[in-house]
Amino acid sequence: LTNPLTYKHKKVQRARKLARKREYRKDQGVFIVEGYKLISEAVDSGAAIESVFAAPDVDFAFSQSLLDSGVRVYPLAAGVMERIADAVTPQPVLAIVRSPQFDRAVLSGVSSVLVLVDVRDPGNAGTILRSAEAAGVGAVVFCDGSVDVLSPKTVRSSAGAVFRVPVVDAITAGDAISILKSLDFVLIGTAGGAKTPYDEVDLVSRVAVLFGNEANGLEGEVLAAMDHSVVIPIEGKSESLNVSMAAAIVSFELARQRRSRSSTSA
Amino acid sequence: LTNPLTYKHKKVQRARKLARKREYRKDQGVFIVEGYKLISEAVDSGAAIESVFAAPDVDFAFSQSLLDSGVRVYPLAAGVMERIADAVTPQPVLAIVRSPQFDRAVLSGVSSVLVLVDVRDPGNAGTILRSAEAAGVGAVVFCDGSVDVLSPKTVRSSAGAVFRVPVVDAITAGDAISILKSLDFVLIGTAGGAKTPYDEVDLVSRVAVLFGNEANGLEGEVLAAMDHSVVIPIEGKSESLNVSMAAAIVSFELARQRRSRSSTSA
Repeated sequence: LTNPLTYKHKKVQRARKLARKREYRKDQGVFIVEGYKLISEAVDSGAAIESVFAAPDVDFAFSQSLLDSGVRVYPLAAGVMERIADAVTPQPVLAIVRSPQFDRAVLSGVSSVLVLVDVRDPGNAGTILRSAEAAGVGAVVFCDGSVDVLSPKTVRSSAGAVFRVPVVDAITAGDAISILKSLDFVLIGTAGGAKTPYDEVDLVSRVAVLFGNEANGLEGEVLAAMDHSVVIPIEGKSESLNVSMAAAIVSFELARQRRSRSSTSA
Repeated sequence: LTNPLTYKHKKVQRARKLARKREYRKDQGVFIVEGYKLISEAVDSGAAIESVFAAPDVDFAFSQSLLDSGVRVYPLAAGVMERIADAVTPQPVLAIVRSPQFDRAVLSGVSSVLVLVDVRDPGNAGTILRSAEAAGVGAVVFCDGSVDVLSPKTVRSSAGAVFRVPVVDAITAGDAISILKSLDFVLIGTAGGAKTPYDEVDLVSRVAVLFGNEANGLEGEVLAAMDHSVVIPIEGKSESLNVSMAAAIVSFELARQRRSRSSTSA
């Protein structure tokens, strides 16, 4: 066994930077996965684990199972994990995982897509991945301007969905719209000012549902390019729904319509 | 103007305890509301503001408007708000607000209710209040075992809905069920093991939808007392939805059915 790594060790400094810097993650081609459950899900999904850092209170059987499968596990000195990890209460184990290759080609094989045009909050983005997976949405597109799909908080909030839902990123909203149109997706924009309730459009056809910025929603050219604009009708004095809640509600309406259609035609 | 209060001042110590102790909030009959927006919403809802604490960087116009309306505003010395407030990055203003009197009688005047049997996470509880308001749900019942509806994090997560959605608390699940049955509510339990999809039950009638613990869902006698048990069908490898997501999906299905019914009968 090696000596526990201190905060000054260059591997620790690199991990800390990976947890914080999107450009550095991109440059290095890896991202951070925190905790037993998410690391297990990364392994299950076939992700390549580059290395693992373990705090002194790590579960021995867990780190042994990683060692047994050929993963390099570095023990950390006490207090070091707290300085690497992004979470307020860090998990005792953290993996550096090879970033997946997101391929636009997935879009041609799916019948529903969520498109995040400018979703800034990593927690919202992760929650959207989670509910998209649960509702059976085919893929999620992160347009330029949206948060990094591989940020530690997005990974955590996704509850592992980031390892399973096909994702497209590094694409402008304009290019995403062009590609989706060329694939005969019906483009549905969500906008607070729209007249049509979201449940009154056909979500059984091949559809892409677009969500805008948390504060401003979809705007300008993107909104103008939509085949339909829809609203989630809101009661009371609430101003609007959180974008992750809106995405879940539309995703499950899509699932409902598809279940309903298939039981009717059966 | 009074001198800024230091951390040792008894009013500061009391506020700190109010932010942390449910029993103390109950005993004192007040709760904590943080930030400009939430305090404004508390005022708009007619809540009685007992007093306000303002950090040195408070917006002058905001504290002046409170002073003008007769609210006692205490300036805090630098660094004191950080030790009172529950949030990681505290807002520069914090109010102590008289707790509302939650009255079970509201249940007789509404046609839909969410019942939280054992929802432990304050963020989930607040998010449920927010989506319940947005979907037009009539009231939310917090059964014993659930988080305090007036905890700072619930208040924050509710985005002000806590001031507007009728709430019932201090009630056992058994009493809530008895009362709702006596008022002819159809009781619908959400349970991962149920066979009926949530959208295949009638949510237009007078319904109460019950949600259980984050980890275990509804169990035992409570589940046995339901008229229907429903599930939100989940695709993929996701294990289950977060309870706040589940509540939003069911609440908006209820709203959808009611809109759809009223447009059909019109």
